Amino acid sequence: MSCAIDNKPNNVAFVSVTAMLDLLKQVGTDAFLLGLSAYIEQDYLRWELFDKSPRFASHSADGVIELMPTSDQQQFSFKYVNGHPKNTHIGLQTVTAFGVLADVASGYPVMLSEMTILTALRTAATSAMMAKYLAPQNAKTMAMIGCGAQSEFQIMAFNVVLGITQFRIYDIDRAAMQKCQQNLASEDIELILCDSAEEVVKGAEIITTCTADKRNATILTSDMVLDGVHINAIGGDCPGKTELAADLLLRADVFVEYEPQTRIEGDIQQLNDSFAVTEMYKVIRGDRKGRSYAEQLTIFDGVGFAIEDFSALRYVHDLLQQQSTPQQLELLTNQQNPRDLFGLLHQSVQVTRLAVGA
Amino acid sequence: MSCAIDNKPNNVAFVSVTAMLDLLKQVGTDAFLLGLSAYIEQDYLRWELFDKSPRFASHSADGVIELMPTSDQQQFSFKYVNGHPKNTHIGLQTVTAFGVLADVASGYPVMLSEMTILTALRTAATSAMMAKYLAPQNAKTMAMIGCGAQSEFQIMAFNVVLGITQFRIYDIDRAAMQKCQQNLASEDIELILCDSAEEVVKGAEIITTCTADKRNATILTSDMVLDGVHINAIGGDCPGKTELAADLLLRADVFVEYEPQTRIEGDIQQLNDSFAVTEMYKVIRGDRKGRSYAEQLTIFDGVGFAIEDFSALRYVHDLLQQQSTPQQLELLTNQQNPRDLFGLLHQSVQVTRLAVGA
Repeated sequence: MSCAIDNKPNNVAFVSVTAMLDLLKQVGTDAFLLGLSAYIEQDYLRWELFDKSPRFASHSADGVIELMPTSDQQQFSFKYVNGHPKNTHIGLQTVTAFGVLADVASGYPVMLSEMTILTALRTAATSAMMAKYLAPQNAKTMAMIGCGAQSEFQIMAFNVVLGITQFRIYDIDRAAMQKCQQNLASEDIELILCDSAEEVVKGAEIITTCTADKRNATILTSDMVLDGVHINAIGGDCPGKTELAADLLLRADVFVEYEPQTRIEGDIQQLNDSFAVTEMYKVIRGDRKGRSYAEQLTIFDGVGFAIEDFSALRYVHDLLQQQSTPQQLELLTNQQNPRDLFGLLHQSVQVTRLAVGA
Repeated sequence: MSCAIDNKPNNVAFVSVTAMLDLLKQVGTDAFLLGLSAYIEQDYLRWELFDKSPRFASHSADGVIELMPTSDQQQFSFKYVNGHPKNTHIGLQTVTAFGVLADVASGYPVMLSEMTILTALRTAATSAMMAKYLAPQNAKTMAMIGCGAQSEFQIMAFNVVLGITQFRIYDIDRAAMQKCQQNLASEDIELILCDSAEEVVKGAEIITTCTADKRNATILTSDMVLDGVHINAIGGDCPGKTELAADLLLRADVFVEYEPQTRIEGDIQQLNDSFAVTEMYKVIRGDRKGRSYAEQLTIFDGVGFAIEDFSALRYVHDLLQQQSTPQQLELLTNQQNPRDLFGLLHQSVQVTRLAVGA
């Protein structure tokens, strides 16, 4: 492996949107999703090493701006992410994100990356990785309810990580289904467009709910779901936003990322805190069982957790080490004498004076 | 005013270290400090509009990484800043920083800026602005204890904002004093190098303490300070790091930025919470008195507050509007259909295939 990153501490590696798309193209989306899900799995195995802070949220009339920090004591990361449901009315995205990876020993940031695309990838990679422990063995069909920005990423991840080949999709907006179909036309999967939520779940061993409605909606009721199914519920991810009927949750074994956060943001916000849930790191480590019998109804109540962003930034940073010319940002000063910060101004002015005098 | 910023929402203005030095050169350090102190003063006048959150801190064996967010409901800002005292041993700086300014209405970041230099400028501009309300009228002499990275910035700010022309400086490391002298050689000020803290304070109407020792040190004892002096105490800025003797604080009227933070981080951490202090926004608004009589001993116990970083980013962003070619970062996606994020990958792959085929 060639290590061509410029290690001058005044430079910070930069992954722009174009660079992220190039990296995806270079690695291949399938391989990227596989690699990323392995990194997330590795970091869940190291669960107790991480600082698990609540995310910082700045709320306003139109949305929220959040900072999501975490650290494994070697590296520190944070993600900036907004959520503005009305943005689409003015041609902007509901969610944009970027993130920073830093070195804990020196406190210096080492990489700044776009995370709008990366978050979509990490959310899908997380869902698929969790499903390895929760979905029925040899599942072949997934139902996808909601064909928004996240849908194709979910389909790709379940295809590559779990080997799902048939996808039944449904969205109240037919144009969204067609967008999904068009985007996945060249993939080696079977895509079936359905006309209702009742129809889409038929015969599916896995059901993914990923709708954008910002209220307590009921996308899935208990009577729609047979025993033995795994539900990957990722659309209910903030206070006041849920997708599953309470009695469906009560029937199932529910698995979460980080319980204190999911109690507030997940579908289980509808239930009393006495309803028991299992944190996935325990399952991944083998301390608790995931799916343990064929008729078990499992639900992954995913809300997105800072460790997954950390894994994603760590993965991209490791991939960058293999690149010959990653872009660099001159974000930090690098003066000879650390105590002589002012000298930088002086130097700069002097140079100009000389230039003017010449 | 020409407004040449590229407003495409996928781009974020970027102020590198070189761009910050160029901006300073273009505006002039004096004018920059004056403008910045006016912005900070304006924002203190709007105090109640701001979200005042405690800073987020990730502590490790060698230092701390902090995120300092705030918002006036129109703009949101945060600063990333580290503090690693041992960094100088490996040729790195103790403190580096960068910050982001964002639009609250859309949640989109609009500017990313280096803040290692900008923090030094804002700290000095804040001290000088506060001293307008607290220092003796027509003061001419300031004593500066500690000639580290912040010292020249303090001297420049007190010169330009308050008209101080004579500076008595002292550092236990003579090389630091010489660095300061050399850096300020071309300025129209009188600089007097002193051999002790006792000597440096003689005849000074203002005393600035800015030492780096990370412990409860006693740089100034009560017997060294006459009545009528203003002390600008900025080195005691985190738990376990103080500069002033407790009896000196008890003799004085103490002014702070944000009381809950200063109780933990400032020199007053040595005192009981019942010791009354005055928040500066009340003084700046005219609700409370700053200096009210000639013999009054005043202390500004400065620790650095998120609003000052917000002001600094707002100031730099306004200056950028007057530039013809600010640098841009491609940090955000900008697809036609906000719900079609995956289409970006598709497009990118297609473009390449065409290119390869051509």
